[in-house]
Amino acid sequence: MGGRSQIGITLLGLGVVGGGVARALLEKAESYSRRVGVPLVLRRILVRDPSRERSVQVDRSLITTDAEEALDADADIVVEVIGGEHPAREYIERALKQGRYVVTANKEVMAKHGPELLAEAGRAGVDILYEASVGGGIPIISPLKRDLSANEITSLRAIINGTTNYILTRMSAEEISFNVALRQAQDLGYAEPHPANDVEGHDAAYKLAILASLAFHTRVRPEDIYREGITRLEPRDFRYAAELGYAIKLLAIARRDPPPADAIQVRVHPALIAADELLAKVDGVLNAVQVEGDLIGRVLFQGAGAGPLPTTSAIMADVLDAARSIAQGSRPSPWRYTAAVAVKPMAELVSRYYLRVEVTDRPGVLAGIARCFGDNQVSIASVIQKETDEAAQTAEIVIMTHAAREAAVQAGIQQIESLEEVRHVGNVLRVED
Amino acid sequence: MGGRSQIGITLLGLGVVGGGVARALLEKAESYSRRVGVPLVLRRILVRDPSRERSVQVDRSLITTDAEEALDADADIVVEVIGGEHPAREYIERALKQGRYVVTANKEVMAKHGPELLAEAGRAGVDILYEASVGGGIPIISPLKRDLSANEITSLRAIINGTTNYILTRMSAEEISFNVALRQAQDLGYAEPHPANDVEGHDAAYKLAILASLAFHTRVRPEDIYREGITRLEPRDFRYAAELGYAIKLLAIARRDPPPADAIQVRVHPALIAADELLAKVDGVLNAVQVEGDLIGRVLFQGAGAGPLPTTSAIMADVLDAARSIAQGSRPSPWRYTAAVAVKPMAELVSRYYLRVEVTDRPGVLAGIARCFGDNQVSIASVIQKETDEAAQTAEIVIMTHAAREAAVQAGIQQIESLEEVRHVGNVLRVED
Repeated sequence: MGGRSQIGITLLGLGVVGGGVARALLEKAESYSRRVGVPLVLRRILVRDPSRERSVQVDRSLITTDAEEALDADADIVVEVIGGEHPAREYIERALKQGRYVVTANKEVMAKHGPELLAEAGRAGVDILYEASVGGGIPIISPLKRDLSANEITSLRAIINGTTNYILTRMSAEEISFNVALRQAQDLGYAEPHPANDVEGHDAAYKLAILASLAFHTRVRPEDIYREGITRLEPRDFRYAAELGYAIKLLAIARRDPPPADAIQVRVHPALIAADELLAKVDGVLNAVQVEGDLIGRVLFQGAGAGPLPTTSAIMADVLDAARSIAQGSRPSPWRYTAAVAVKPMAELVSRYYLRVEVTDRPGVLAGIARCFGDNQVSIASVIQKETDEAAQTAEIVIMTHAAREAAVQAGIQQIESLEEVRHVGNVLRVED
Repeated sequence: MGGRSQIGITLLGLGVVGGGVARALLEKAESYSRRVGVPLVLRRILVRDPSRERSVQVDRSLITTDAEEALDADADIVVEVIGGEHPAREYIERALKQGRYVVTANKEVMAKHGPELLAEAGRAGVDILYEASVGGGIPIISPLKRDLSANEITSLRAIINGTTNYILTRMSAEEISFNVALRQAQDLGYAEPHPANDVEGHDAAYKLAILASLAFHTRVRPEDIYREGITRLEPRDFRYAAELGYAIKLLAIARRDPPPADAIQVRVHPALIAADELLAKVDGVLNAVQVEGDLIGRVLFQGAGAGPLPTTSAIMADVLDAARSIAQGSRPSPWRYTAAVAVKPMAELVSRYYLRVEVTDRPGVLAGIARCFGDNQVSIASVIQKETDEAAQTAEIVIMTHAAREAAVQAGIQQIESLEEVRHVGNVLRVED
């Protein structure tokens, strides 16, 4: 494999990210060639619509709509930036089988099929690199694989969806509703017209599956992850949380319970987090990943979690790494999942909880709620009565529990909902300590 | 080189960090062996005083006081945690010449002799890895070498000395003097009895030389770096800065002026930084490095900058990386400095400045000061009169300038110092925008 005079690259996709990659390859050709030792050359670019205007000027003879032709071109590295599960997965598999390195930004494919693709890469003597699949340009895959590899990772907590973090930041700062904040995000291009993938936490769950699999050397599937979106949050949740000293963030959390339990929790949900924690201060479209290990303690990685340029930074870092390996004739060792670790059922989670309940403003209502929790061994840490509406004779009560099992809290809430004085339970949020 | 059945390691030094490394190698042997593919085995440990109590139990037959014996042992990797320039540098050089990988935490040796040692490693077909030399366990060397390698780095701003950051944090929070805060830091073991290396910025300058060399692919020597310590700061500087919306941090700054200038600035000094910037919120012994690149924008790495466990995390990441290379028979490619970039003289720096001047409280004094700056083309952005002492007829004036050349500001200050009404110029600090 050594002694190449150039490294050929096939690019699958020429959208915003693909355009960024093509532009970097063209405009930075000289500096990349110096860093790798040999030039990187674009061999083929697969597009859907060849007539579309592009932000980058590429040699039209490189462009093809024929996937077979693109994949069979004489390339050492295939960069996949089409996105979505199909046909990206099939293209990647084929490229690996042909003995080509693959660099991908595809979180869905890596979350669902990462282990099979890594094994395929191993069989073919190549590698599949996917730094851009999580956190845009923020280095996090490579630090987990290399820089933190001497640690047993105990937890990973992340803000890895910029869309939802932007919405939550606006809701908190301006006391506006979810729908108004979503519209702002859509107007700015931060949210899709159909935002479910982001606001329901699917995107964060894919990314968490990738990170947790690396952190714990085991396979975590997207369906293993408990997932709750941000659509039920109301402006007053942010206000009450702030009064109690917390921010509300959509957190992706992976945590390993120490032996003898030795199970992992993996969950994506909005959570109260103490206002003085670093993650509480990560605002707008920024992303951040905090990793805790037995040696390193806590370390935080923060930066732009999306956008064509940051994503290009991550993709090209992988491309340059692969190119150096190819140019040197090194034998790569794709990541291996060495452990089988059980995923702890959500019902067994132990957490503190924030609860907002609308009640009829009448003596004894609080005693009734306390009894429902008491019956389930959930103890209350604090209660604040809020927003009394004298005309409607209603009040809102905000409760913080002590640490309790999720199953017990849910059972308590069911009982509370059946109380005559309770209009409805407005929101239940976990507190991330 | 391939097909090793184990990887032998020689450890030079068994102090706090060396003890941490030895302990990790012993206690985590099984998990490290799984991650590398073959076991890592401690072959020899060089110590000065074999009778000293150690926090870690090692086989006494491994311990030697004979450097020759330790270096000539049959090891694949030599881990140097002695510190200081000599004899560490000679040991490292010898190990490389013998074809062994070297992992070091030695910032002084890497700052002064890094390029020669990297070249030596290249000639011997091995590598020298030094993640632990900057920022304790925080991954920063490897991200600069790999994850950010597709970028042209435009700036790097860092808090990379935990001792001084602890002192500044205490001075700011408690309005105590430098000496009192230093004593607190010494009592807690955060500062040495002879603290000059930290408080005068030497330690930060070594680390900045290492980071800037990587960021700009050029050789930056410690003596190229402008350096100013924190001993002249007074509690009121923090108070005035806070009133103006700033924190004061000892920053290590490397910045590349775009072409046609194409020169770099490298400097370590206390600076005012806007209170809402991420770096302004990095408190206590934490370290943080913010890197800005043309693709990635700003990315921040934050964590514990010192301590035996975080440092062990970084050292062992390098050891595992080297071990994997050796086990696979890969040919490493030590980092190369490909560019020659000029260092911009400090006199040409353009910055805003904060200035505190004690004056005789008399009409016309401000006009005099303004004239001194005006004569040198330095324009004043704001003036606040502080701390009038009616009995002594003195007042303190705090001035913020607009962006101006360092040479012009220094010339202005010289003129100001010669004014009759000026008792003395209390402090001059740069503002980091």
